Amino acid sequence: MIAGKTLQELADLLGGQVTGDPLLRITGLGTLDHATEGQITFLANPRYAAKVEITRASAVVLTPAADTFGRNAIVVTNPYLAFAKLLTLYTSRPHVGRGVMAGACVDKGAVIGEHATVYPGAYIAEGVRIGDRATIHHNVTLYAGVVLGDDVTLHSGVSVREGCRIGNRVTIHNGTVIGSDGFGYAPDGATWCKIPQIGIVIIEDDVEIGANTTVDRAALEITRIGRGTKIDNLVQVAHNCIIGEDCIIVAQVGMAGSVTLGRHVTMGGQAGIAGHVVIGDNAMISGQSGVFGTVAAGAVISGTPAIRHQSRLKSAAVFPHLPEMRKTLAKLGGRMTKMEESHEPVSQTALS
Amino acid sequence: MIAGKTLQELADLLGGQVTGDPLLRITGLGTLDHATEGQITFLANPRYAAKVEITRASAVVLTPAADTFGRNAIVVTNPYLAFAKLLTLYTSRPHVGRGVMAGACVDKGAVIGEHATVYPGAYIAEGVRIGDRATIHHNVTLYAGVVLGDDVTLHSGVSVREGCRIGNRVTIHNGTVIGSDGFGYAPDGATWCKIPQIGIVIIEDDVEIGANTTVDRAALEITRIGRGTKIDNLVQVAHNCIIGEDCIIVAQVGMAGSVTLGRHVTMGGQAGIAGHVVIGDNAMISGQSGVFGTVAAGAVISGTPAIRHQSRLKSAAVFPHLPEMRKTLAKLGGRMTKMEESHEPVSQTALS
Amino acid sequence: MIAGKTLQELADLLGGQVTGDPLLRITGLGTLDHATEGQITFLANPRYAAKVEITRASAVVLTPAADTFGRNAIVVTNPYLAFAKLLTLYTSRPHVGRGVMAGACVDKGAVIGEHATVYPGAYIAEGVRIGDRATIHHNVTLYAGVVLGDDVTLHSGVSVREGCRIGNRVTIHNGTVIGSDGFGYAPDGATWCKIPQIGIVIIEDDVEIGANTTVDRAALEITRIGRGTKIDNLVQVAHNCIIGEDCIIVAQVGMAGSVTLGRHVTMGGQAGIAGHVVIGDNAMISGQSGVFGTVAAGAVISGTPAIRHQSRLKSAAVFPHLPEMRKTLAKLGGRMTKMEESHEPVSQTALS
Repeated sequence: MIAGKTLQELADLLGGQVTGDPLLRITGLGTLDHATEGQITFLANPRYAAKVEITRASAVVLTPAADTFGRNAIVVTNPYLAFAKLLTLYTSRPHVGRGVMAGACVDKGAVIGEHATVYPGAYIAEGVRIGDRATIHHNVTLYAGVVLGDDVTLHSGVSVREGCRIGNRVTIHNGTVIGSDGFGYAPDGATWCKIPQIGIVIIEDDVEIGANTTVDRAALEITRIGRGTKIDNLVQVAHNCIIGEDCIIVAQVGMAGSVTLGRHVTMGGQAGIAGHVVIGDNAMISGQSGVFGTVAAGAVISGTPAIRHQSRLKSAAVFPHLPEMRKTLAKLGGRMTKMEESHEPVSQTALS
Repeated sequence: MIAGKTLQELADLLGGQVTGDPLLRITGLGTLDHATEGQITFLANPRYAAKVEITRASAVVLTPAADTFGRNAIVVTNPYLAFAKLLTLYTSRPHVGRGVMAGACVDKGAVIGEHATVYPGAYIAEGVRIGDRATIHHNVTLYAGVVLGDDVTLHSGVSVREGCRIGNRVTIHNGTVIGSDGFGYAPDGATWCKIPQIGIVIIEDDVEIGANTTVDRAALEITRIGRGTKIDNLVQVAHNCIIGEDCIIVAQVGMAGSVTLGRHVTMGGQAGIAGHVVIGDNAMISGQSGVFGTVAAGAVISGTPAIRHQSRLKSAAVFPHLPEMRKTLAKLGGRMTKMEESHEPVSQTALS
Repeated sequence: MIAGKTLQELADLLGGQVTGDPLLRITGLGTLDHATEGQITFLANPRYAAKVEITRASAVVLTPAADTFGRNAIVVTNPYLAFAKLLTLYTSRPHVGRGVMAGACVDKGAVIGEHATVYPGAYIAEGVRIGDRATIHHNVTLYAGVVLGDDVTLHSGVSVREGCRIGNRVTIHNGTVIGSDGFGYAPDGATWCKIPQIGIVIIEDDVEIGANTTVDRAALEITRIGRGTKIDNLVQVAHNCIIGEDCIIVAQVGMAGSVTLGRHVTMGGQAGIAGHVVIGDNAMISGQSGVFGTVAAGAVISGTPAIRHQSRLKSAAVFPHLPEMRKTLAKLGGRMTKMEESHEPVSQTALS
């Protein structure tokens, strides 16, 4: 928590314009409803515009289109992003490196960067290299040959298997497993012969991964998570998947082997992708979808098997009417037959 | 295992009536098929009523409607509940508090209640408070400021993150993570800016949570699990969810951010709820459902998107007939066109 | 890594026939594209047959039907299986038993087999028995009375609960939980009374289980995973499930209580099975399916509720046409009514 910044200093940080007193000192932030004097708040949803007049906050971050009601304000194009940056500013604390603490188990051949912290109960095997300012929490296990970049945080219970590589500024939450064996077996009569999984996982810079997620090592080569991608809890990334940069993968998504995601793909919760499928840049896959074939860049799809989202909404709206449609169809068939039967003699009569 | 109770003592415990010998001593319990002499068994499903006559058990718990076949019996309204209570009675063991065991890592500022056990490999950070008779298994990690009530059991590998609060008589199974960061990012051009997650998780009294489940901390305020709610394995509860009392959440369910569940809601396995959706009291959501909008109290729904369960069953029964319906529809169109074409000249002829 | 085998030695291992130089020495293996001199490669997919001519590998494993292009070769019926066996041969290393390492916590009453390794941070409770050549990684927790066979590998973070039994040559990946309580509660008015889960889990020989999977202990008796079955990551196996031999269970599958799987059943990712359902031998259940009733041996099913896979593909192809079908149906109804109305007076006219 910092002592306070002036409104102008915050505007400079956010790339915004001050309306009102640039020297006003801001000590923290809060929501429109709960902020108090000295704090700054933000208006992201125009629905709440009227609250700007009555909030107890001392300043408001809002868009050029919004009414300031004469309040001190910072005008920006994206108040939600500004809020994220301010929250980071007011809640981040200076990094403290505590070194290798008593009770941690670090192999003599491992290399630990400067200002890193290794908590009691962590296990760092032979040949591991850990960058500067890393934080390795309790009960993290790094198998032989793992390499971590700078400013990495691994929360308690994370395991990183043999030889996997993790970039800079990566955060992995509790219980997540990186580099467990891919699921590969060759049929041998009625039984299964394991295919050794000797590839690795590479996680690029600025990735964040949630809790209890699993990312399997490649069979022979690399399972890759691209720079800036964010993965939620309980997600399955199978062997040989290649995930592009800046993707958003929501909880409980499952990707089968050798799936390829382009850049900035969004996958809703519990969606699944079959093996070897390729997803184009900026595609959006709705929650619970099942994807069995190529998805074009920018496509928005949903359902199992997934189709265009708008098309599926329309079909889903018809689904509850299926029983009535089937009845109507049967009745129509009956009416038609009756008509045909009555029509023929009638026309014959008429023609006779 | 206790030495034995009389039939009358068990009846008093269950709030039931003895038929037969109230002084009969019961030493344990078993199923209708496998119970032996000295044991008590129960009849919950009327289908097995005939087994009451031939079971080797010395007594039977059954409803007033069931035939005792002259056996010693305890008559209750809910034999299944009685079975649960008897099983608890005969299998529970006296609590033994072993204190902080060698190999546990407990910060000096942490407070551990009376008769608690902290196993080797557990890590208790600064400011943690643990109630009486708590059992903290191997490799549990409690981050700074965590508060646990009395009679809490945390199984091996559980992590509870900074400042989260857990009530009395809560049991959490292995590998579950409480209070990992919610999944919140603001778009910043083509990349994503993390929104710090500074809220907490509150778990109320008498909650039980299964293995490898994840409950994320709120962005700013509270993610809450209501009193008496039971959550199964591999469930995802996202940030800011508010779950009511006495809910049943089956394995692999996923709830997106800010979902609200009323009291006594039942969610079947693998069901998912989209963000900000509100579910009414006593609603039942079938397994694998996808819920995208408000659900009324008491509603029974299923499917993706979820509709009334009975309606969906009827539509699902029609689904396999879609290809034949489409063909029939096309043929009917053809027959209609033919009819219309033949009809017009015919009627003209007839009218001419 | 071995020093090298002759082509004849490899052919003998694989049960294949040498074409070319049987004394050729092979030092490793690689793919058709990446293998180098001295290595052997394989052709499993006929699409790549032309690469046999140009690969830099010194020998090729292929089927009798494939053209060797005059290369040194081993001819086998199943090159993919041969590849798995060769990869195992060239990547496996001699077992090294390191014993109970400093920092491991092993109860005095536990029995550890010969040439086993117990890593620092593992916790082995009273009454545990571990077979020969077992590898117990960091932070594994074995509760009281657990029994492991020979050649078992438990990766970091695995927990095995009270009394569960694991056979020979079983590998369990990181964070998986065996024997957590089944999800069983009896309704007690508006609240829930826990049914103690006092059964166990038995995992038979040659099973492999992925990361962060959960297998619950039975209520009273046994949850069983049959010999040779392979289970992927994040799978839920509920209490009292009986899984047959040589099944393949892909990631994020969920099985509710008391499900029975026959032999050699395949379940695609994210599929779910409702409680007490029985699946016949060799059945194949497509990814994301929801199974609510008995499945016959050899059946191939998909969808929710699951139906025959081929039938479902046909219905799914019609699904996007539902809105147009509904419109067509309504129009046909209108045309029919018009026809019926015009028909009657017409025929009356004609008949008059």
